[in-house]
Amino acid sequence: MSDHQEVPVAPVGAHEPPYYVAVFTAVRTHDQSGYGETAARMEELVRHVPGFLGMDHAQTPGGLGITVGYFRDPDALTEWRANSEHRAAQKRGIGEWYESYTLHVAKVERSHGFRRP
Amino acid sequence: MSDHQEVPVAPVGAHEPPYYVAVFTAVRTHDQSGYGETAARMEELVRHVPGFLGMDHAQTPGGLGITVGYFRDPDALTEWRANSEHRAAQKRGIGEWYESYTLHVAKVERSHGFRRP
Repeated sequence: MSDHQEVPVAPVGAHEPPYYVAVFTAVRTHDQSGYGETAARMEELVRHVPGFLGMDHAQTPGGLGITVGYFRDPDALTEWRANSEHRAAQKRGIGEWYESYTLHVAKVERSHGFRRP
Repeated sequence: MSDHQEVPVAPVGAHEPPYYVAVFTAVRTHDQSGYGETAARMEELVRHVPGFLGMDHAQTPGGLGITVGYFRDPDALTEWRANSEHRAAQKRGIGEWYESYTLHVAKVERSHGFRRP
């Protein structure tokens, strides 16, 4: 099940550092056939990666989309990077769905959160 | 000048690691009076921080917003964190604008980008 399109109650919270973030920033093309199904499938798949901690996604209509994946350690990132369905989706993204994107993989050194009481 | 509301041509590109990302994920309250002016002012201020590399922002209507700031080194982050106008804005955010948020500060270990030819 995917909640990719649903409004979240709250962003993913702070975990105990160190952990990793994969920050994917993208502008999409006009040809988005198949994108929604693939995005939902990727979200389903990544949840099965040991060490996956959660995901946040925001999309400005007609503009930039940002997806942040949170992972416990480098092994979790490696497993997700090596996933064959994920690799096939990446190729299709370059071929069809993305006008431009950047991926930043980073080790979290500190974090904190706020929830309104 | 702020381009906070404009559609970007492309996300901020990959820089040579190491550099830092500040990933701010937030759900806002219904009371947004003064938010737009303050966000624009913060964007103007952060551009003057030595070592500031850029910023990406995406906002799902009625949902999650994600802002990613890119900084060359910890000194740049420290300067931005210590800025008095920024601190005042953070207090107002907690008091009025944010239902919930999380901040993750992380050191980028690798990055890459794609631009459609």
